[in-house]
Amino acid sequence: MKKIMNDPNQVVQDMLKGFVAAFPNDVKQLPNTTVIARKNAPVSNKVGLVSGGGSGHEPAHAGYVGKGMLDAAVAGEVFTSPTPDQVYEAIKAVDGGAGVFLVIKNYTGDVMNFEMAAELAAAEGIDVEQVIVNDDVAVEDSSFTTGRRGIAGTVFVHKIAGAKAEQGGSLQDVKAVAEKVVANVRSMGMALTPCTVPAAGKPSFEIDDNEMEIGMGIHGEPGIERKEIASANEIAEELTQKVLEDIDYSGSEVAVMVNGLGSTPEMELFIVNARVHEILAEKGIKVYKTFVGEYMTSLEMAGCSVTLLKLDDELKELLEAEAVTPAFSS
Amino acid sequence: MKKIMNDPNQVVQDMLKGFVAAFPNDVKQLPNTTVIARKNAPVSNKVGLVSGGGSGHEPAHAGYVGKGMLDAAVAGEVFTSPTPDQVYEAIKAVDGGAGVFLVIKNYTGDVMNFEMAAELAAAEGIDVEQVIVNDDVAVEDSSFTTGRRGIAGTVFVHKIAGAKAEQGGSLQDVKAVAEKVVANVRSMGMALTPCTVPAAGKPSFEIDDNEMEIGMGIHGEPGIERKEIASANEIAEELTQKVLEDIDYSGSEVAVMVNGLGSTPEMELFIVNARVHEILAEKGIKVYKTFVGEYMTSLEMAGCSVTLLKLDDELKELLEAEAVTPAFSS
Repeated sequence: MKKIMNDPNQVVQDMLKGFVAAFPNDVKQLPNTTVIARKNAPVSNKVGLVSGGGSGHEPAHAGYVGKGMLDAAVAGEVFTSPTPDQVYEAIKAVDGGAGVFLVIKNYTGDVMNFEMAAELAAAEGIDVEQVIVNDDVAVEDSSFTTGRRGIAGTVFVHKIAGAKAEQGGSLQDVKAVAEKVVANVRSMGMALTPCTVPAAGKPSFEIDDNEMEIGMGIHGEPGIERKEIASANEIAEELTQKVLEDIDYSGSEVAVMVNGLGSTPEMELFIVNARVHEILAEKGIKVYKTFVGEYMTSLEMAGCSVTLLKLDDELKELLEAEAVTPAFSS
Repeated sequence: MKKIMNDPNQVVQDMLKGFVAAFPNDVKQLPNTTVIARKNAPVSNKVGLVSGGGSGHEPAHAGYVGKGMLDAAVAGEVFTSPTPDQVYEAIKAVDGGAGVFLVIKNYTGDVMNFEMAAELAAAEGIDVEQVIVNDDVAVEDSSFTTGRRGIAGTVFVHKIAGAKAEQGGSLQDVKAVAEKVVANVRSMGMALTPCTVPAAGKPSFEIDDNEMEIGMGIHGEPGIERKEIASANEIAEELTQKVLEDIDYSGSEVAVMVNGLGSTPEMELFIVNARVHEILAEKGIKVYKTFVGEYMTSLEMAGCSVTLLKLDDELKELLEAEAVTPAFSS
């Protein structure tokens, strides 16, 4: 294991300290928690947005805390759901009187712990609503999930629901648009290498030097198929095709995200993006906006995912709305 | 070699195609070149900024093409200087009548080829000035360099000289402020792993599983010392100390950049950043702004660099000025 760290059991706390040191005017860490919130939270009469999950997916989720996106992000241990009390602290800290909205990636632990926190908050009189993101078309049910997993498409939920809340949308408005994103966003990923959880000290699985895994999850959960490494074009085709088969994108406009899982050079992501755009053009699907980079990672895993979000006028406008966060600007 | 690519000899062309596909309203590729320019280049009566170098350092340099930063970026083959004719095409394409300014990282090939291009352009009556960036304090002279190497600090030159040009500064104004940045910016890096140039197919060097190299360059050029992997705190201390010894930062305000070399998780960069901030606080050096992420990479090398830019009021204002590029927003 080659990592730049101090105590492997303290990586999350050390990271949060370095995060707040980097953006002291924009964010704060709630005392004695692993919650990063906007410096000015709670914002009066604005729906507060909370997301989070296991650490190791940076810049998700703290990187998306800021104007037009999240009000708070809760960091669990690496690849481990945050506990309900941490989520509860986040909810209380961002409640500005208009309610709090939770964006939950579909992993059993996350769903259970965020819902338990929501119940605690409701008992305190805070209105809480939620959406569960399950954009990964690769597999139904897996190591950590009942149903499909939530992966990179989650960032579009943060962006669009965040914009709706920033514009003064009600809790029900925010929920409605978040559900619209979830209904229209699909992703699929692949990996060339595993990654190593610091406290574990060894890779989560093994894969041969000439192999890749299609449909692998962002914690190294098994995908659909392990096979010889294909060309970038073939990889782009396989991922994009699986996404396109899942809902009807014909004649629509889409946002594209080609997301790196951690150690894939940007060069390779752009090579994949070139073919994704060709495929969409061949199918008459118009690309409205493209995102290429690391948005939802898996520590130092090599690999990528392709996400397509089907847009309408409302989603386009909210996608373009101002966002000012450490990891996302528009 | 585990890479997502098609023909290893076409990675740069394939990448540029994917880059333009991603940002078609913002940039263009000059026909039959490896030059990415602003869509609206040349901008009338604005000094045109050109940078570039070998590929493999993404998001440098094309990621910094846009309002408030570069007008064009020239991409060489991986870790190979672009040829003079390519640089010359870039210069011609961004000359809006106020002259063209070249930001050159100090590598022998880059300096030679950019200067040759400048001579060709001068012969055509285009005013060309330049700055050579040599922020790496690790070593004097190395595999590809006479004098110190240019590394992540180059991004601050792009940002600040770009802002000056955007505000209507003359060619001499832009040169003066670029030289001020170069005089006040210092960096130092370290690596845990090598990287593999696609066309070479094998790592550029070998390093043991328990070793790191201090002072390694962004092409894997040798550094100062190879030794057992230290803690993040010790790494932060060694890099920061070497930078602080080089010029007098006492009592000053600085911009900090903790830059990832390609496969280092953001988590680890923030852990380093935490200690960098502590060291600066101990020394009474005030941090004005912090950048943590991948700004100047070395394909999939694991490692990081620390950059400090000593600021004055002019540099602060130019650092804050609006920039809208694929990889940098302010």
